[in-house]
Amino acid sequence: MGILRLSHVEVRCPDLELSTAYYTEVMGLIETAVEDEAVYLKGWDEQQHHSLILRYAPTYGVERVGFKVQHAEDLDELTSAIEGYGIATKRFAAGELGPGSGETVRFVAPSGHTIELVHGMEQIGNALPLHNPPPEPQGLSGMHPPRIDHVFLMCEDVDEITRFYTEVLGFRLTEQIVADDGHQLATFLERTHTAHDIAFIVGPDAAFHHVAYWVDDWNDLRRSADIAAYHGVRIDAGPTRHGATRGWGLYFFDPAGNRNEVYTGGYWADPDREPITWTEAQMGRAVFYYEGVVDQNFLTVHS
Amino acid sequence: MGILRLSHVEVRCPDLELSTAYYTEVMGLIETAVEDEAVYLKGWDEQQHHSLILRYAPTYGVERVGFKVQHAEDLDELTSAIEGYGIATKRFAAGELGPGSGETVRFVAPSGHTIELVHGMEQIGNALPLHNPPPEPQGLSGMHPPRIDHVFLMCEDVDEITRFYTEVLGFRLTEQIVADDGHQLATFLERTHTAHDIAFIVGPDAAFHHVAYWVDDWNDLRRSADIAAYHGVRIDAGPTRHGATRGWGLYFFDPAGNRNEVYTGGYWADPDREPITWTEAQMGRAVFYYEGVVDQNFLTVHS
Amino acid sequence: MGILRLSHVEVRCPDLELSTAYYTEVMGLIETAVEDEAVYLKGWDEQQHHSLILRYAPTYGVERVGFKVQHAEDLDELTSAIEGYGIATKRFAAGELGPGSGETVRFVAPSGHTIELVHGMEQIGNALPLHNPPPEPQGLSGMHPPRIDHVFLMCEDVDEITRFYTEVLGFRLTEQIVADDGHQLATFLERTHTAHDIAFIVGPDAAFHHVAYWVDDWNDLRRSADIAAYHGVRIDAGPTRHGATRGWGLYFFDPAGNRNEVYTGGYWADPDREPITWTEAQMGRAVFYYEGVVDQNFLTVHS
Amino acid sequence: MGILRLSHVEVRCPDLELSTAYYTEVMGLIETAVEDEAVYLKGWDEQQHHSLILRYAPTYGVERVGFKVQHAEDLDELTSAIEGYGIATKRFAAGELGPGSGETVRFVAPSGHTIELVHGMEQIGNALPLHNPPPEPQGLSGMHPPRIDHVFLMCEDVDEITRFYTEVLGFRLTEQIVADDGHQLATFLERTHTAHDIAFIVGPDAAFHHVAYWVDDWNDLRRSADIAAYHGVRIDAGPTRHGATRGWGLYFFDPAGNRNEVYTGGYWADPDREPITWTEAQMGRAVFYYEGVVDQNFLTVHS
Repeated sequence: MGILRLSHVEVRCPDLELSTAYYTEVMGLIETAVEDEAVYLKGWDEQQHHSLILRYAPTYGVERVGFKVQHAEDLDELTSAIEGYGIATKRFAAGELGPGSGETVRFVAPSGHTIELVHGMEQIGNALPLHNPPPEPQGLSGMHPPRIDHVFLMCEDVDEITRFYTEVLGFRLTEQIVADDGHQLATFLERTHTAHDIAFIVGPDAAFHHVAYWVDDWNDLRRSADIAAYHGVRIDAGPTRHGATRGWGLYFFDPAGNRNEVYTGGYWADPDREPITWTEAQMGRAVFYYEGVVDQNFLTVHS
Repeated sequence: MGILRLSHVEVRCPDLELSTAYYTEVMGLIETAVEDEAVYLKGWDEQQHHSLILRYAPTYGVERVGFKVQHAEDLDELTSAIEGYGIATKRFAAGELGPGSGETVRFVAPSGHTIELVHGMEQIGNALPLHNPPPEPQGLSGMHPPRIDHVFLMCEDVDEITRFYTEVLGFRLTEQIVADDGHQLATFLERTHTAHDIAFIVGPDAAFHHVAYWVDDWNDLRRSADIAAYHGVRIDAGPTRHGATRGWGLYFFDPAGNRNEVYTGGYWADPDREPITWTEAQMGRAVFYYEGVVDQNFLTVHS
Repeated sequence: MGILRLSHVEVRCPDLELSTAYYTEVMGLIETAVEDEAVYLKGWDEQQHHSLILRYAPTYGVERVGFKVQHAEDLDELTSAIEGYGIATKRFAAGELGPGSGETVRFVAPSGHTIELVHGMEQIGNALPLHNPPPEPQGLSGMHPPRIDHVFLMCEDVDEITRFYTEVLGFRLTEQIVADDGHQLATFLERTHTAHDIAFIVGPDAAFHHVAYWVDDWNDLRRSADIAAYHGVRIDAGPTRHGATRGWGLYFFDPAGNRNEVYTGGYWADPDREPITWTEAQMGRAVFYYEGVVDQNFLTVHS
Repeated sequence: MGILRLSHVEVRCPDLELSTAYYTEVMGLIETAVEDEAVYLKGWDEQQHHSLILRYAPTYGVERVGFKVQHAEDLDELTSAIEGYGIATKRFAAGELGPGSGETVRFVAPSGHTIELVHGMEQIGNALPLHNPPPEPQGLSGMHPPRIDHVFLMCEDVDEITRFYTEVLGFRLTEQIVADDGHQLATFLERTHTAHDIAFIVGPDAAFHHVAYWVDDWNDLRRSADIAAYHGVRIDAGPTRHGATRGWGLYFFDPAGNRNEVYTGGYWADPDREPITWTEAQMGRAVFYYEGVVDQNFLTVHS
């Protein structure tokens, strides 16, 4: 009940054609709809209409982040909770927000990001038959991750946004990086019993750090790095391991400058599991377990 | 709300000492308690007191299967549903069923298996610190899977037990193998949004097919096979891929004759995803995607 | 000096078109020449004109096995040694034996197989530039192994053929399976300091067991098995580990019935390394380390 | 005939005890002999007495590099060639240079490094039985690479040292990085038909860049990085891919400051294969294919 998982992320890009070529040929996402100023994409195994929207804009950054709720009534309950917190919401009917869109509640979270809760996005299947399917369709291109995994955002007050996500939206805290003065520098939050569906790190409000797609294993990170390098895509970090989440990831940039990740690993998190805390002194290991230090670019290159 | 995941499986073994040596040294589970006639074990990353109980008995087989519920109230709601279906239940207080046990509702499902629903099993941690943990403790032995994944049982009427698990216990059907006459030969059921937490295949009532622990990737299946072979453990099948669930697995036997699996892969399953159907003619591929045929042993060796 | 490595294998097939489709699309070899009754193929990273020849014939089996020598003079020295052993040889000029062929010495070994020693086969490159190459060309299909690895043949007298290969051709014995009566059941022989370039197992003279192409790792065996299963290719065994050679392999059949393997792993073997001996009782583990038994098909399905 | 492969590397370290702990527990090499001022180590699968010598010295760096020759006569032939080039050599009897040492020819190469050619180093086995061996001994620690792979040295005149290694010592050039002015910036040289047994990069004469041990696959690089990070070992770069050699590697430092690598992948190189050339502009990709740039540390941190 409540939020099921991360549904979609909308990113800005000044050159839609170039970004579409990158996301379909290098990332290997599936294009599902095109509008004048937007392109809709999904991971090959996703049943839903889209998990990524490219939106024409003069610069890069994140426009919206959407979460899927399981039941139609969840929209009402969550609306009450959000408005009870003092935040206005707006409701959209299915289809009103573009191709495939479901019934949607939209609001601006305390971090400055526009958030959507959606029920009933159009289901379009994963290109495999429902009878005797092979494990993967033929003819996929590039990295071709099966599905979206998590989004990483920035904001000034991580303590506050963490309270909002846990108390109002029902997320659970799995890990946190805590400054010596007691403030949260980064928090990892989940609804899927994985290490994170969304995370926040200290930075400017409304800023975007990265969107991550799932790949199946460490070998796929190598394959993804080969593909990125072959196409001249700038790799930011990895393949490496994260201390926080225990996962493995590869970071790189889309043509607009939005950071992407392909990610795998992590763990199952029961709701009654204690959160893990990383101290400020160990922030390097929390982010890049092998290198032990966080490159300044990693914290400052964002929208 | 409702059942969160598979919690524990209790298997029978005539030689507790031998089986304990196997499960701790070859499988690499962690021993957490010993009684006269039972040994309690868990995967290293599990926070709960146990996920496997070895119970002294003259032969092999499954004694009980337990599911974890998220909230204490779930026990009441599920009890009502089960009794409404005409099945008697019995309630046990925390601790009453042995070391670490939580508050428990026990009943016999239509498949003949004894099922437990549990809330509040003792949490004992995963041996990693809650501050700045490394990704894995040192000194693990054998295959050392982090956690239990699923259980596979047999019964005569798969259609009926599938109805019971979906309508009464709230499971969702992800995949099924359907006979030419329309009956279900096997069904895969989930609560964790994975391909399966429990599955049933046609066979004698109350019979056990296997219990599976999760490992992180295809490479761990190879490592596990090396370990099994080194210790002279009989490997039943694999490393191979399953058509159903798309996962990869390795089957082998404990000293008592209980089949074990280490499993990885699979997919995320939204609750509104359509089930996949395998036809009887393709049952071979559904079970063993590479070989394309099911060895008779695989269907007949059980308790 | 002497034989450098396995150069090429020529197999028989009654349907050249079908076999070509299989070897290019499923195995992913590169077609380099076509004649009326023969098709020439190579692994993508091979510089030489071909490593596999498909030869029209009413049934399956091996027609010829070729080894590459490093220097032109090696042909003369090896000719002397072979003729000194009492075996007639025949010399062919470069190009005389078909497209790309080098200067060749041909003879029939005591095992009944036609063997060729070749120098100067045409070099045609690996499709990568010689300046700033990426690690792999784009657009490869199927399993696309980079190169041939070894060939496995059958004959009645393994002791004799092993003596011939070591004393006359300069191979070194790395491993052997020895019967309780002291005869060799199988021997593994190398010139490349790997675990084997050619191996023999007891069976009918002139019979073919399999030809193996190298793939880079265990993950490629999984990928290869997925590809084989997708195309309905019959998988004979694996992915599994061999006790002898320590390598990992996947066995499957071409449309004519010739057994193929994709293989990886193994070890470096110094020339002064002692051979490893497997006893008859452990032959199962020597061949299939995980299963511990050799399926009768594996020994009897051959040409 | 001639040089067979890299045999051993002797590195300097000011704290023998600390370095020994690192090389045995983190790298997982096997200690085979201890002297007052030297410790002898080998990869677990090596038959020879040692492939690494730790030599007490006030600072880090490389003391000697040794190559194994196949035949005793190779020592005489290579001595003639070296002295013909105008370099003095010194001969040592087996055992004279310390535990396990074979008959040795020592000289100072034009790069300023002390080089040894050795025949008949003591063979001590790999701890596996010669009958029915498992694929790996039990109880290995740390990364436990099976064997040494290559050594990477620095010198001022890479053109000259490359001529010396190819024309005098019989190495073959597989790859080179060439400056815009036509000078060689780095060269990769082999005797084992792999991408390199030794390589040179422009830098101070007699300087050491790294010694690399082989691991079996990309997954072992991850495992090695986990081990390095766990023990607080400073990781310099990787897991990453090299453009030159196509291999994958992980760089890190021993306690004295000597750079180590664990390496896998690469290719088979026939002696008649054309060398690959990297331009100065693509030097970044040649060294770090994913990152595309060479960190200055990588070129300047050396002994």
